Amino acid sequence: MSRPAGEDAWLADALGAFETPDHTVLGIGHDAAALRVGAAGVAVLAKDVIVDGVHFQLSECGPAAAARKALAINLSDLAAAGARPLGFLVGAVLPKPVSRALFDGLMAGFATAARALECPCFGGDTNAAEGPLVLSVTVIGAPGPLGVLSRAGAQPGDVLSVTGGLGGSLGGRHLTFQPRVREALALAEAGVPKAMMDLSDGLSRDLPRLCRASGVGAQIDGAALPIHADVLATDPASSLRHALDDGEDFELLVAHAPLSGAQQAQLEQAGVVLARIGAVVPAEEGVTILGNGARRPLEPRGYDHLGG
Amino acid sequence: MSRPAGEDAWLADALGAFETPDHTVLGIGHDAAALRVGAAGVAVLAKDVIVDGVHFQLSECGPAAAARKALAINLSDLAAAGARPLGFLVGAVLPKPVSRALFDGLMAGFATAARALECPCFGGDTNAAEGPLVLSVTVIGAPGPLGVLSRAGAQPGDVLSVTGGLGGSLGGRHLTFQPRVREALALAEAGVPKAMMDLSDGLSRDLPRLCRASGVGAQIDGAALPIHADVLATDPASSLRHALDDGEDFELLVAHAPLSGAQQAQLEQAGVVLARIGAVVPAEEGVTILGNGARRPLEPRGYDHLGG
Repeated sequence: MSRPAGEDAWLADALGAFETPDHTVLGIGHDAAALRVGAAGVAVLAKDVIVDGVHFQLSECGPAAAARKALAINLSDLAAAGARPLGFLVGAVLPKPVSRALFDGLMAGFATAARALECPCFGGDTNAAEGPLVLSVTVIGAPGPLGVLSRAGAQPGDVLSVTGGLGGSLGGRHLTFQPRVREALALAEAGVPKAMMDLSDGLSRDLPRLCRASGVGAQIDGAALPIHADVLATDPASSLRHALDDGEDFELLVAHAPLSGAQQAQLEQAGVVLARIGAVVPAEEGVTILGNGARRPLEPRGYDHLGG
Repeated sequence: MSRPAGEDAWLADALGAFETPDHTVLGIGHDAAALRVGAAGVAVLAKDVIVDGVHFQLSECGPAAAARKALAINLSDLAAAGARPLGFLVGAVLPKPVSRALFDGLMAGFATAARALECPCFGGDTNAAEGPLVLSVTVIGAPGPLGVLSRAGAQPGDVLSVTGGLGGSLGGRHLTFQPRVREALALAEAGVPKAMMDLSDGLSRDLPRLCRASGVGAQIDGAALPIHADVLATDPASSLRHALDDGEDFELLVAHAPLSGAQQAQLEQAGVVLARIGAVVPAEEGVTILGNGARRPLEPRGYDHLGG
């Protein structure tokens, strides 16, 4: 397996300093974290931060859409863990001088998003500073039917699937996407996922992460990637590149054994569509993509949060 | 009781839009939130955000001190709930272009703070943007010996006490203070607190919040306020004003019945010192301070996060 690049490399270097306590269920390095709370409870947590000018354009989308995105991306992380959402907290930094309209718009937006995405707000913290609007949401949930799922657990011979079309999200879908909470719980209910993650930085950057966490390689088939209609409508000539690199798809990437007939029927009944995109292979074979009859390494060109 | 001002008033107006689900243990409006996770678990959560130029000066204090403060202020919130810390998550927005030294300094700082403050890190999210460094920490804990404590529960006849000296924190103590986690658990173990909060915005702004949440008034004695040595060393002439308004004391404000002899002995053995500053009175009597033989309303002049 290749050494991680950019943000991932920096993080990998830093992680040695952190300790893993006994009550850890899922530690650093996955979409969510999980820990034991009391004798019989496990809390699943996810925390993602978004910033005006980077993850949304406040002047164009308005505060309600920004608030919705801040909650939805965290629910996507919780979905990756196969967890059931219970609530969220908001941390906000508003640009000075603080506008009452912005404050009210954010609060109303979070209240609306909480109802629409079925995850109640439990409070938060609001501050003001010279700088862009920052929204930091933390979601908490409980383990779903298969417990806490993670990026680890994929094995050679497994199938790799995604829950929907990839690419073109930045045209607007990144503000309106439906986090795959329902799908994740249905997949877990059917006993399907062995490893799971949400695609936030693009398949070309995220798939190697799942492979590293699982200690495996992967072979994906370019022709099998489901291209989102958003790409086909705007730049069909480069659709494969968009599907691999655009990021913010917020679909689930699932490693699983070939589906049984019963599982297929159960997923169909739940309205969950899995698109098969490739297979898990031994780590030595690396992460590759098949296209035009040739196999080549999958280069991570997706989004690097630290701008590398 | 007076209507809240500034930030509190904006929040009060916005809260009506939020729903309170059945699994709520402690909802919006306290230092921490708490919810049921599974059949037998309760998770206590706190989330506070700090920003360079507002809550710390990165160029002066460095990344390790900023990281420590981000964790410590959240542990202070958890202490206010009488909870036992289990872990934390970090959300960071680093100024562009991202400095590797800053990244590494923050990671090392969080790792060191995690050990020093006995609260392990479970992960997080790092981003970059044009703007100041933003650190958003979420801590999770489990209920302590008295369950989940809050700002509500004070009753007329109760004593008001604090766990240490007030004022002068901004001279440097705000970066090095010890969150009162141990004290909170010892107080709960002794069955003392009926209502509790941590003093982050100054007693003059925070005490009315506890009173509103409990539906009571308060009468504090200016001569009884413990003045921190930091004030006496710099501006002794205005020590009362500093003790009331400076903020960032991160001492616990506790409403409790008069201590029994057994409780006093238990607290003494645990090394917890409570300074009695006043009494809880009926709401109609408002929040007042005694000084120079006269009683006057306590005006909230502490820190308003939205800059009002």
